[in-house]
Amino acid sequence: MFQSFTAPTTPEHGPARLQALREQITQEGLLGFMVPRADLHQGEYVAPCDERLAWLTGFTGSAGFCIVLPEIAGVFIDGRYRVQVRAQVADCFTPVAWPEIQPAAWIAAQISGKDGQNFKALSGGEIGFDPWLHTKSEIDRLQADLPEGISLRAVDNLVDRVWLDRPAPPSAIVRRHSAEFAGQSAAEKRAAIAADIGPARACVLTLPDSICWLLNIRGADIARNPIAQALAILNERGEVSLYAQSTKFEDVIDHLGSAVTLHPLSAFAPALRSLTGPVRVDAETAPLQIGVELAAAGTPLIWGADPCVIRKAVKNPAEIAGMEAAHLRDGAAMVTFLASMEADQFQSEAGDPLSEIEIVTRLEAARIATGQLIDISFDTICGAGPNGAIVHYRVTHETNRATRTGDILLIDSGGQYPDGTTDITRVVPVGEVLQDAVAPYTRVLQGMIDLSTARFPRGVAGAHLDALARAPLWRAGLDFDHGTGHGVGAALCVHEGPARISRASNIPLLEGMILSIEPGYYREGLFGIRIENLVRVVKAPDLGDLRDQLAFETLTLCPIDKRLIDPDLLTQDQRHWLNAYHRRVETALKPLVDAPTRAWLEAACAAL
Amino acid sequence: MFQSFTAPTTPEHGPARLQALREQITQEGLLGFMVPRADLHQGEYVAPCDERLAWLTGFTGSAGFCIVLPEIAGVFIDGRYRVQVRAQVADCFTPVAWPEIQPAAWIAAQISGKDGQNFKALSGGEIGFDPWLHTKSEIDRLQADLPEGISLRAVDNLVDRVWLDRPAPPSAIVRRHSAEFAGQSAAEKRAAIAADIGPARACVLTLPDSICWLLNIRGADIARNPIAQALAILNERGEVSLYAQSTKFEDVIDHLGSAVTLHPLSAFAPALRSLTGPVRVDAETAPLQIGVELAAAGTPLIWGADPCVIRKAVKNPAEIAGMEAAHLRDGAAMVTFLASMEADQFQSEAGDPLSEIEIVTRLEAARIATGQLIDISFDTICGAGPNGAIVHYRVTHETNRATRTGDILLIDSGGQYPDGTTDITRVVPVGEVLQDAVAPYTRVLQGMIDLSTARFPRGVAGAHLDALARAPLWRAGLDFDHGTGHGVGAALCVHEGPARISRASNIPLLEGMILSIEPGYYREGLFGIRIENLVRVVKAPDLGDLRDQLAFETLTLCPIDKRLIDPDLLTQDQRHWLNAYHRRVETALKPLVDAPTRAWLEAACAAL
Repeated sequence: MFQSFTAPTTPEHGPARLQALREQITQEGLLGFMVPRADLHQGEYVAPCDERLAWLTGFTGSAGFCIVLPEIAGVFIDGRYRVQVRAQVADCFTPVAWPEIQPAAWIAAQISGKDGQNFKALSGGEIGFDPWLHTKSEIDRLQADLPEGISLRAVDNLVDRVWLDRPAPPSAIVRRHSAEFAGQSAAEKRAAIAADIGPARACVLTLPDSICWLLNIRGADIARNPIAQALAILNERGEVSLYAQSTKFEDVIDHLGSAVTLHPLSAFAPALRSLTGPVRVDAETAPLQIGVELAAAGTPLIWGADPCVIRKAVKNPAEIAGMEAAHLRDGAAMVTFLASMEADQFQSEAGDPLSEIEIVTRLEAARIATGQLIDISFDTICGAGPNGAIVHYRVTHETNRATRTGDILLIDSGGQYPDGTTDITRVVPVGEVLQDAVAPYTRVLQGMIDLSTARFPRGVAGAHLDALARAPLWRAGLDFDHGTGHGVGAALCVHEGPARISRASNIPLLEGMILSIEPGYYREGLFGIRIENLVRVVKAPDLGDLRDQLAFETLTLCPIDKRLIDPDLLTQDQRHWLNAYHRRVETALKPLVDAPTRAWLEAACAAL
Repeated sequence: MFQSFTAPTTPEHGPARLQALREQITQEGLLGFMVPRADLHQGEYVAPCDERLAWLTGFTGSAGFCIVLPEIAGVFIDGRYRVQVRAQVADCFTPVAWPEIQPAAWIAAQISGKDGQNFKALSGGEIGFDPWLHTKSEIDRLQADLPEGISLRAVDNLVDRVWLDRPAPPSAIVRRHSAEFAGQSAAEKRAAIAADIGPARACVLTLPDSICWLLNIRGADIARNPIAQALAILNERGEVSLYAQSTKFEDVIDHLGSAVTLHPLSAFAPALRSLTGPVRVDAETAPLQIGVELAAAGTPLIWGADPCVIRKAVKNPAEIAGMEAAHLRDGAAMVTFLASMEADQFQSEAGDPLSEIEIVTRLEAARIATGQLIDISFDTICGAGPNGAIVHYRVTHETNRATRTGDILLIDSGGQYPDGTTDITRVVPVGEVLQDAVAPYTRVLQGMIDLSTARFPRGVAGAHLDALARAPLWRAGLDFDHGTGHGVGAALCVHEGPARISRASNIPLLEGMILSIEPGYYREGLFGIRIENLVRVVKAPDLGDLRDQLAFETLTLCPIDKRLIDPDLLTQDQRHWLNAYHRRVETALKPLVDAPTRAWLEAACAAL
């Protein structure tokens, strides 16, 4: 079992830990200290040894940070976590609504005493931060906005000084990602990236998924993400120096070859100082300290995006074939799971209604039964009834709900397989169909279909397409408060940049990118709906016009529940898409499932 | 008759004028000189005295510029004018594809001799420009990109020195824009803008439509645009100093009141030097020289957008009522015109087929017959058959086409009335219906309807909505190469900022903004299609959800030709919209037209 159902927060330790940290702050002659969620690699997930924010404050959300000042410690969290943070942190921490309140403005308010907090105004000073955990862009922005009298100072990590039982860094054994799935040798990739970085003579890579993609390796340092943590320097000849715990790489020494050399992490900073420039560094994702080391050595810098990101996002035919195979396998597991729940009428063997935890467990078992599951691709979001309306819900023993008839059940899940990564959301009614959910469900489906069937010219970005998935909801006065889609890695991270389908994303979509399309609708206290398929960007079929267009091709194979659809709302085109999709799903999955599942599949895929 | 049908270009004068300009350049010790299309006010249209680019080069397009160097003179033009420029300029001018080729890169190529032109490489030097005709943003960008050895130098306008018969500046009499149509007194507006500009103590206004809006005046200095050319300084007390030819303002002295003082244009620069700062200036639209004058006087500057722009874009109830009245009147003129062409079977009294010029003339006559037309709002685009495929077509005696059966006729036109401004495009078949045009026409209509009926949350910009109007075309592999819509002034300029419906526009739409929705499709050499209505942004009707949304309400009242529609392509919702729109048009216009037009209107508005 990959997923656990515990609520890992320990708010009771907060006051003592904060006290210990404040002593360090005072000892350093600082006014305060910043504790980010991010690690060295700025990823979405961090290893236990990097859970500094959770260790200090108790807050376990996937984004946020804490600024500790003499008489207040602000925990900055976004709208998703307003409720959660109150349950997780002790009174010595003050939740701050971010990004509405920006850190510099908050600090300024503390200094002037203007925020109404009952403490004396500060007189200025330095706020410390660990320069390996913040990017140049982040520090530049903050520094520019800080009020007069306050500045930032890079220091050793003060949390690490007081976190005495801090876990060891992850050390999972790295495996080879086979050429069959990668479609290109690591040597070819290294040569291509070396050509990309000109006129720089070297490039620093700090994103683990970039390094894993580049070297055709996979790891298990971070749960749900098949990555190995490392830092790398690629030179103009395509040679790579890898900085990491070398024991992790024992199994892949031969695979890496002589152009890739292994070094301890402690050799990274000295290596930076010995580079011949110009050196390319990503200001948005690389730790600030990298630029500081290069500048100290007088080495010229070129600020430029991590060159692996765009090549990784554009999947080659082998990667696409791997993703297709993974989706076929995953689809069979999904229908086996869905059919079994229906066959059991959402009851356990003992005759009790299935709980969310039992459903998550059953789904994971179906994926494990494929014999190929490496990990789930994220903790399954399984929300019945009102829990479905919590967008980032993760069931724990405390919140676990027994399903009851009339519940709308939302299940967002995915698998990591050797050949690909999946991410799928389906919604099913438990027993009786909640009539109030039918119109919103149909509109969510319309949005998913309208975007899935869109054709569009090159140059169009997620910002321009987002409305196509929302317009059917908007027409009914509805909407959803998350992006419409994210990039997905090929046997890599389920959230992968740079393209997204969101009003905020101006990265043009390119042939070969794989993205999710996942509109939703959430009625607080009642139910949540989300329908999600993965799609890949393809050259659109020629329609005789001279224009060269792009389109999406759906990768996900699993029926979309028809009981929640109001057929009268669908256009002819939408109904045709749904029926054609179901014919395709049925044909693809029928050979892969047992007889009872097959009967369920046929009914689920029957034409509307 | 407002519109003329002559082609005003005189390419034969080019060589002599260029020679005279080059002598001035040499005399000033310069390497070259820039001749922009823009005037002091950076507007889309310029007065004859400001047609420097056309005078020098012969090129009459609405965007472009010329850079004169010792042995080459580049005329920079965008994609719309690639064909036109070749017909209009003499051989001594070299067309340059802009923005693909940027001026700095082009200059660099001339210096290195790398562009293959047969002339010796330049050794560096200064390029002159008139600092009253370029903005700070423009010059900053250019200066930053110029190759080493080349710099810019502000000088007197060298074209004006050699343009001996340059026309006098426009001096049309300014009229009052009544409070009934403005909805707010000029005093109220001045006070509101004065409050907006804090902490600046004064604000420089250089956009004539901003000044006319602010002071509730209208002019006729520029054809098609009811504006008076002037510069203004508004101070923190809401008092305005107006710099312009004072005789123009004779009729509105009382209306302006004692808080508005008139000064000659020559007093503007000295007035700048005597201001107490900080002074707010718009870096995107104000001439560079304004900042130079302020800096020379040591006056602090605040760069900030023209504060009138956003208040002008958001129309108040009186402005909306005026726009509605204008659209009712204009709609009656349109249907009278359309009905008369049909009644005459597209033939003149002499029995000849109507020509494009005759159609333009007949439409203008129908608008003049309303008794309220002040001007047309732009030169009518009337393209029959292949001429319809030229997006910015303006018929001349040389291009004038006699309509023939099977032609698709595209008519894009509008009127300037005392109470409002209109802009409408309709397409009608001449005689027989060209079957090839039916599917594209229907898809253009679908796009227009889908966007017209969209609801969307606050914060959404044109960039996010543009795809809704294109998706039906995209699905058929079709598209159009212009924006989907532009802002429209209330009895002001027909193209008004800041919001647009375009992938490039991130200005959020606000309640009260008026925009066009005008998707199209153009098949070169055969036909052009565009369907355009004006809409205003409204609070969307409450649908019971808590979300506060915006929507569009259509202002334009005129039937959309049904003969070109394939009803099978329309969704139920689209058909319902069209039928409801036609019922509304029929009810509104029936009382305003004569009996034969009424019969035509009833048929045109019958349900599909």
